[in-house]
Amino acid sequence: MKMNWNTIAGPEVVVDSRKAKRNIARMQEKAQTAGVDLRPHFKTHQSPLIGKWFGPPEQTPIAVSSVPMARLFADAGWRDILIAIPLNPRQLPAYNRLAREITLGLTVEHIDALKTVQRLMHPIDLYVEIDAGYGRTGISWRESRRIYELLKAAHELPQVRHVGILLHAGNSYTTRGDHGIAQVHQESLERLQQLLADSPIPTDSIRVSVGDTPTCSRMDSFPGADEIRPGNYVFYDWQQQRIGACDWSDIALAVACPVIARYPERGEVVVHGGAVHFSKDFVLIDGKPRYGQVMRITSDGWGGPIQDAYVHGLSQEHGKVKVPDTLMAELQLGDLLVIVPAHSCLVMDASKGECVLIR
Amino acid sequence: MKMNWNTIAGPEVVVDSRKAKRNIARMQEKAQTAGVDLRPHFKTHQSPLIGKWFGPPEQTPIAVSSVPMARLFADAGWRDILIAIPLNPRQLPAYNRLAREITLGLTVEHIDALKTVQRLMHPIDLYVEIDAGYGRTGISWRESRRIYELLKAAHELPQVRHVGILLHAGNSYTTRGDHGIAQVHQESLERLQQLLADSPIPTDSIRVSVGDTPTCSRMDSFPGADEIRPGNYVFYDWQQQRIGACDWSDIALAVACPVIARYPERGEVVVHGGAVHFSKDFVLIDGKPRYGQVMRITSDGWGGPIQDAYVHGLSQEHGKVKVPDTLMAELQLGDLLVIVPAHSCLVMDASKGECVLIR
Repeated sequence: MKMNWNTIAGPEVVVDSRKAKRNIARMQEKAQTAGVDLRPHFKTHQSPLIGKWFGPPEQTPIAVSSVPMARLFADAGWRDILIAIPLNPRQLPAYNRLAREITLGLTVEHIDALKTVQRLMHPIDLYVEIDAGYGRTGISWRESRRIYELLKAAHELPQVRHVGILLHAGNSYTTRGDHGIAQVHQESLERLQQLLADSPIPTDSIRVSVGDTPTCSRMDSFPGADEIRPGNYVFYDWQQQRIGACDWSDIALAVACPVIARYPERGEVVVHGGAVHFSKDFVLIDGKPRYGQVMRITSDGWGGPIQDAYVHGLSQEHGKVKVPDTLMAELQLGDLLVIVPAHSCLVMDASKGECVLIR
Repeated sequence: MKMNWNTIAGPEVVVDSRKAKRNIARMQEKAQTAGVDLRPHFKTHQSPLIGKWFGPPEQTPIAVSSVPMARLFADAGWRDILIAIPLNPRQLPAYNRLAREITLGLTVEHIDALKTVQRLMHPIDLYVEIDAGYGRTGISWRESRRIYELLKAAHELPQVRHVGILLHAGNSYTTRGDHGIAQVHQESLERLQQLLADSPIPTDSIRVSVGDTPTCSRMDSFPGADEIRPGNYVFYDWQQQRIGACDWSDIALAVACPVIARYPERGEVVVHGGAVHFSKDFVLIDGKPRYGQVMRITSDGWGGPIQDAYVHGLSQEHGKVKVPDTLMAELQLGDLLVIVPAHSCLVMDASKGECVLIR
């Protein structure tokens, strides 16, 4: 379908549905070939409409990262939802309502959290989060005693239907290329397997959920895992391209921003499109942050990156965009720039899942 | 009123209405004493409810930074709205609808933008944006010929009721303390006055609108200005405290975040509260970014900052918070941390104006 850019006043999030659906299909094939289940992380798009591209809601297990997201997707028909962030005791009433309606998975990383689980009136799946080197949340893989104690206690709770372990190897985000990604991947999975070797409860009763977009995109096997849980891959973004998790042509989300000021003497234009659209996440190039990469506009969407055309400054609603002389010469006030952001998850969150679909 | 923190599951934006109303009143007194009008910038809160704290909507001229914000406040009763970002030609239909309903102010910084103004079917006020040293948008104060040409052309358009010039001295944000703020303030206003001295149209017909929170908070006179246009001062934030624009006790907005994981060995806890709540804006201390400062909780809100307790890492929903040993020892899962963000405008945008009011 031809894209009618004239209907966009901007700034507006634009999703290329053909690319997104291709990304979804590729990951589904990979999971199938690798013999693992796929539980896509829906924090990336937060959109029931886009969620349906992954398959029928009632047949698609998903992960989310907050209670409001779980509520959104439960109300829209998803029936198996894992909240992949450590349990917040203050959300007990919301967990109870969700557990009554759907197959709810909760995440814990401390024995104290079981006090909340014990107060649930409906069964849940309970995942113990392991930190295999990332250093954000989860019990360190080194503290096997604490992990075993928690697995055992969880296993014995009447509220717990299935016990699992959950890993997010977010340290893959600081690597570059297949070699670095493979290293994080192997190390993390080996640490999990070592842990499970001495498990106090039968390992075939423990569901192992792993996943992050770089390793799931570039690796082909997931030894020891029952399911993978990537999220960002539906859109990808500039950070993923830099890591080596995707090519430019895989990126399915951009922000269309109108030029509102031209500064030939500074080699830049200013667009309406700021921190509230792009977030302030960035890729670091030559030691300086870049918030977005300008792409070539085509009749049906966008093509490759335009060299030396990138967002280098953001305030609340303004974006400062470096442009090469050739582009500067042809840009008029009101022209659109199509810009791939550093981090698409934060862009979709900022737009609360609202976007223009193309193709 | 006593604050009942138990009703907050978090993360949740919390606004101390007593502090915010005091900040509003102070700025109103200052404007009155200085003999300038006050046009508060509502991009900071984006909330009609909070907007009413500034006075009756129909008597309160305001600034906003996007068409959707103008629409929100026009629908809620505000009658004089300046969109203080360069005009986007693609928004002509929206400008037309607004101009029919309210006193609409638009901003231009290039003669080409007048083509859009000429297609309006209702009168507007038109502001020419001047860049007096900030380097974001506006015509450089050095290019007086372009400025005069634009003022003259604007003055002659039948669609233009009043002509103004608009300045945002955002370079005050990179200063520290009254001396630095005063320097930016004086320099900017002197440059405007020099420009106006040779104006091709009567200067008493040109409305001069200036303003940013640091200069409006710390300076007492605004020579040559007709109105000031600060926004952030209603809440302030950690960046403003660092600049010296406010004290800790003036900050009226925080994010209440539940502790979801404890790491005594790393001297930190993890809260539910991430980039989607705080934005990734930061203050730089010892060369490292800090995204939020933990405050002492009191029975009716929060008190001063807790030393060495700050957010030093953010992912989408997780916040990594350094805490001193004494605090670590008493924190339990589910306890709330009340955290002043680096930049309150982006926090309110992320919450789409939703917040819990205290007092």
